[in-house]
Amino acid sequence: MASIGRIGILTSGGDCAGLNAVIRAVVHRAVEGYGWEVVGIHQGTAGLMARPVEAEPLDLSLFTGAFLRMAGTILGTTSEGDPFDFPLPDGSRIDRSDEVVEGYRSLGLDALIGVGGDGSLAILRRLARQGGIDFVGIPKTIDNDVGLTEVSVGYATAVWVATEALDRLMPTAASHSRVMVLEVMGRDAGHIALAAGISGGADIILIPEIPYRMEAVAGKIEELKERGRNFALVVVAEAVRTESGVPITRRRAGSGSRYGGIGYYVAERIAELTGAKTRVTVLGHLQRGGMPTPRDRLMASVFGVYAVDLIAAGRFDRMVAWSARQVVDVPLADAIASYRAVDPAGPLVHTARGLGICLGDL
Amino acid sequence: MASIGRIGILTSGGDCAGLNAVIRAVVHRAVEGYGWEVVGIHQGTAGLMARPVEAEPLDLSLFTGAFLRMAGTILGTTSEGDPFDFPLPDGSRIDRSDEVVEGYRSLGLDALIGVGGDGSLAILRRLARQGGIDFVGIPKTIDNDVGLTEVSVGYATAVWVATEALDRLMPTAASHSRVMVLEVMGRDAGHIALAAGISGGADIILIPEIPYRMEAVAGKIEELKERGRNFALVVVAEAVRTESGVPITRRRAGSGSRYGGIGYYVAERIAELTGAKTRVTVLGHLQRGGMPTPRDRLMASVFGVYAVDLIAAGRFDRMVAWSARQVVDVPLADAIASYRAVDPAGPLVHTARGLGICLGDL
Amino acid sequence: MASIGRIGILTSGGDCAGLNAVIRAVVHRAVEGYGWEVVGIHQGTAGLMARPVEAEPLDLSLFTGAFLRMAGTILGTTSEGDPFDFPLPDGSRIDRSDEVVEGYRSLGLDALIGVGGDGSLAILRRLARQGGIDFVGIPKTIDNDVGLTEVSVGYATAVWVATEALDRLMPTAASHSRVMVLEVMGRDAGHIALAAGISGGADIILIPEIPYRMEAVAGKIEELKERGRNFALVVVAEAVRTESGVPITRRRAGSGSRYGGIGYYVAERIAELTGAKTRVTVLGHLQRGGMPTPRDRLMASVFGVYAVDLIAAGRFDRMVAWSARQVVDVPLADAIASYRAVDPAGPLVHTARGLGICLGDL
Amino acid sequence: MASIGRIGILTSGGDCAGLNAVIRAVVHRAVEGYGWEVVGIHQGTAGLMARPVEAEPLDLSLFTGAFLRMAGTILGTTSEGDPFDFPLPDGSRIDRSDEVVEGYRSLGLDALIGVGGDGSLAILRRLARQGGIDFVGIPKTIDNDVGLTEVSVGYATAVWVATEALDRLMPTAASHSRVMVLEVMGRDAGHIALAAGISGGADIILIPEIPYRMEAVAGKIEELKERGRNFALVVVAEAVRTESGVPITRRRAGSGSRYGGIGYYVAERIAELTGAKTRVTVLGHLQRGGMPTPRDRLMASVFGVYAVDLIAAGRFDRMVAWSARQVVDVPLADAIASYRAVDPAGPLVHTARGLGICLGDL
Repeated sequence: MASIGRIGILTSGGDCAGLNAVIRAVVHRAVEGYGWEVVGIHQGTAGLMARPVEAEPLDLSLFTGAFLRMAGTILGTTSEGDPFDFPLPDGSRIDRSDEVVEGYRSLGLDALIGVGGDGSLAILRRLARQGGIDFVGIPKTIDNDVGLTEVSVGYATAVWVATEALDRLMPTAASHSRVMVLEVMGRDAGHIALAAGISGGADIILIPEIPYRMEAVAGKIEELKERGRNFALVVVAEAVRTESGVPITRRRAGSGSRYGGIGYYVAERIAELTGAKTRVTVLGHLQRGGMPTPRDRLMASVFGVYAVDLIAAGRFDRMVAWSARQVVDVPLADAIASYRAVDPAGPLVHTARGLGICLGDL
Repeated sequence: MASIGRIGILTSGGDCAGLNAVIRAVVHRAVEGYGWEVVGIHQGTAGLMARPVEAEPLDLSLFTGAFLRMAGTILGTTSEGDPFDFPLPDGSRIDRSDEVVEGYRSLGLDALIGVGGDGSLAILRRLARQGGIDFVGIPKTIDNDVGLTEVSVGYATAVWVATEALDRLMPTAASHSRVMVLEVMGRDAGHIALAAGISGGADIILIPEIPYRMEAVAGKIEELKERGRNFALVVVAEAVRTESGVPITRRRAGSGSRYGGIGYYVAERIAELTGAKTRVTVLGHLQRGGMPTPRDRLMASVFGVYAVDLIAAGRFDRMVAWSARQVVDVPLADAIASYRAVDPAGPLVHTARGLGICLGDL
Repeated sequence: MASIGRIGILTSGGDCAGLNAVIRAVVHRAVEGYGWEVVGIHQGTAGLMARPVEAEPLDLSLFTGAFLRMAGTILGTTSEGDPFDFPLPDGSRIDRSDEVVEGYRSLGLDALIGVGGDGSLAILRRLARQGGIDFVGIPKTIDNDVGLTEVSVGYATAVWVATEALDRLMPTAASHSRVMVLEVMGRDAGHIALAAGISGGADIILIPEIPYRMEAVAGKIEELKERGRNFALVVVAEAVRTESGVPITRRRAGSGSRYGGIGYYVAERIAELTGAKTRVTVLGHLQRGGMPTPRDRLMASVFGVYAVDLIAAGRFDRMVAWSARQVVDVPLADAIASYRAVDPAGPLVHTARGLGICLGDL
Repeated sequence: MASIGRIGILTSGGDCAGLNAVIRAVVHRAVEGYGWEVVGIHQGTAGLMARPVEAEPLDLSLFTGAFLRMAGTILGTTSEGDPFDFPLPDGSRIDRSDEVVEGYRSLGLDALIGVGGDGSLAILRRLARQGGIDFVGIPKTIDNDVGLTEVSVGYATAVWVATEALDRLMPTAASHSRVMVLEVMGRDAGHIALAAGISGGADIILIPEIPYRMEAVAGKIEELKERGRNFALVVVAEAVRTESGVPITRRRAGSGSRYGGIGYYVAERIAELTGAKTRVTVLGHLQRGGMPTPRDRLMASVFGVYAVDLIAAGRFDRMVAWSARQVVDVPLADAIASYRAVDPAGPLVHTARGLGICLGDL
């Protein structure tokens, strides 16, 4: 195993709560535990693509009291611009991966830690293999869809924010006899919607993994009404499509799309079918920026320390993971290949049904 | 003064945090303090319009531990349907005020407490005068625009929720180098936007009381960029109009309006003028449903107790109010006539400017 | 398997956040899913010992919006009075287990769900075997020391409250250049102290599983001072003893013990050894009463639904458990026998050391 | 009026939430608004007494996103050591005021802003007069006892933390049928206890301004029991004495005092008189360190900006204050002389009585 003296760290993809706690743990472990230097790379792969490369040494003096508690990432991130398929202003795309690898080399690093979701980790792994970079991955994603680990950094906080939103929507729904629709994040998976929906007392939860019929949704609302309930709480994952399977892109300013998001579609359909007064809340970026929950801070700390240990042990092309109360490491390739959606036969779906929550399919 | 034995209470207009605390205080004071009965009227004036009238006796057994802490109103409310101009399904409007007065009379009440904002209190006062109802008003509104009182129930919690949203948007804005636009409530006034904007560290605050130019907004973002800041936080009150003064109605599901709200308009214009990446969050109903802050619980308790005292003293057609650390009462007519917008020469506007916050006008 | 028509539920031992969510899930699943009746037994085994037995039918009408979010247990609990060794006013103890079994029988129940920690579950199991009661257990404890399950209800919320306390102590510690000692719960185990200490940025964590020397503690504080830090955060589990191994009982009003708890002892010793200004905060019952976190609500819901399913399947003398993202059931006897302390070789201890946190032993 | 080019700021006395927001506002206004330099003095008057003087220039680069939200004060503070009566290690006391004035002069400042409570402001005023220092005061205190202003920085957050504690104690009190006693801060005044007690649903509130009899307290608990309530919440301000008027000093580690604080005394007496199971929680320093509420951040910003404006206007020996929704300034001497306790005839005491809360005197 090569001797290590200097490592890099970057955060990639959509930001989330807990990234700063990862950075703090990596620096503590590397600097105090092993006596290495740590270089923080700015804006993910974009920082390695820039000339001069955008990076800075990180040391313990950085970490004031509030640091551990801060959402976001001081290193910045990029969720645009796969270096292998980089968008140019004219709309065309080119491969800039060589520039990234060259940028990495210019920093004189012995190894790299990348914090990302499945998409980012796949790109980083491809770069690592192309450039001969000794790489270790740490899973982070509010969507909780990275495989082979029970926990990814950021998910717990996103569920917290979404649950709190339901706590707040319930009294106003009841006061005004309304059906409140909450649209939560989840680009492909319904984990946030399902967990927050159960925790927040939702009556209806729609997730992309379970096809739904609006008749079932409307039927649930009618059933609640017959039982004396004057309101309902509906949670919809942003990845849910229309009944006929058409995706609804998040409305950007002036994009001209008819709906602001699937939440608006579902609310309109409920109003049509039941006559209920509906209101929509799109939670959006609030889910990324909540102060990290203790669990996200804890797992970020565990992963950060262990990722450095992996480098010290010369174990590369691995991802740190949490399994059965233990920190482990798994082949990065396997983790990337093991995308995890909500299991329709799993315990959370069973629990939702057991609580009488309508998932739209029955 | 007539002897009192039985009073009614109703909540009217948009709900907010602290209404249940008002109800609790009224029942405590009337039942324990004076030995009266209290009748809770459901859904505001709609409950008095219904036949049979929708109302129920309220007693102390109602108030379990969590009651004080719950947002919303157990009595329900209505924000639709002025009885003097009541909308029919065919779109026409009729005067149903006599039915409301008759409904009130059928309950055998000696006096009525109404909790509402300036619009609701004006309607309730008109009903009271028409029906000879001994009426006392309690100010509540998240918009904080009721005159002659320093405090209205619900405002403090709305500011809390909006401030917390800025706390959450800031790290994700910084991580992704974005301009985050937060649209907050305030049907006519910019109080929430101004207070939350200052408290939450906004860079730009747009309120309806201060005309703005997008060039000033864009200039502030450019200035921040030049000083090394990679992000900006913008707060916009929903009542703000386009630069040319066109109101933008909140987008309902499928309403076909181009913008989802003024927040989208502002974000799009910022993107056009500065090239910045923008994202919009519309906070919406979350502002009504937050767990009431201590201040909202406290003022709700003060107002509830004192409104009952006013009835006991035979002082009607008055509104309870808070002024210079004292609870007082003011003529209801004067309070209604004293709508209060943000004062462009007031201390909060001055403070915002003193902190370098751009209000769009300079 | 016997046909089921009517089941009981009781909560036992120290209360915690999430118990009401368990009750809600059990009632939903049993009543809606299986058409059974559910009887709630008051004050744990004390309700079965009372004559008449203290119990009430539970149905869905009980669960208003706030119920899921409320800490505590509407059924009440008892943490005093093992029926097999019941304390009499004169200080003697008798076996009243027959009365409990008889009380259970008088309710005409087909099965019983008990929610408790390892101590309570052991007593309940003994009662079940003695009385031929078909019993299923659900693990709850803020201490997180029940074996064979990765999760017990209440722990996540206790860690939340303790972490938040550290978030609040840090700025005042830094402002006044103080060493702040936070004593947290954990009757035998250091789980709360360790997890909250890592999440809350503690510098020193003392847990009963790792013997400590005050010289190591004082040395860490000196080291921090040399590095320019003017404050330190210390977390101590209540089960920690003096250096010489003497237990310090929590001070009751007027008990005359010298120390208010181990936190006071540690603070005094730090002051003696380093001259630092110290302050102590004993978190106490606040750890039990926090609004349940989404995770506690979620696991409470999962366990409640699944416990009812176990009864339906005729699987008794089992405890529901969480393992590797799945809900499972384990032999109750094995769970009771598998008390879990903090593993000094486990990932959290390793993480703490990796972050430079002093555990008092090195 | 002398031309200003450079001002100093210090924070003095017990820290609280919102001090950093004051510092931020002062720097913004002075640097951006007037083009002055700002020097931050460390540890209050202790920084001016040190040689070399402990101070540093403050500029806008200091204020990252989290700064506004952080409790405490980056300048540090001292709550020990009146320079006019400075304690020496041998227990004697000397006047070191000349050293402080000389330290101030060495910084070449044109004016000084001091943030403190009534005690600190009195000392600072005396120093200012002795040294010919142009001084402006900003009121801060969690105790809310500074006169001539409706608001002091830090109080709102302390009430928030204490109210939240009651929210958490209530469910565990009810689950275990206990009387929970919460001791809150308030060195001389009962403002926190009264406001948090009302907001948090306390049954009994003891404040130093209202003499109490334990018989009245016990009577209230008996009354609650008769009405079916199995628990009670009691709030006690730390300044409350025993029934016979003996002060109970907060127990320090090993101080040997019989009680840990007045909360323990009250709990013990309740147990004696009613036989109730009691538990005590001493909130302590958690009240100083909560993340500042929006109101504290807002008022801190208003005061900070306006204090700089006062200096620019040459108005010295004044304190900024909040009155009837306006920022004003009052003679510092008058403010110091106008200590404000809870008014037993004021609206909050009346509200407490109106809610049936026992204040111990009836």
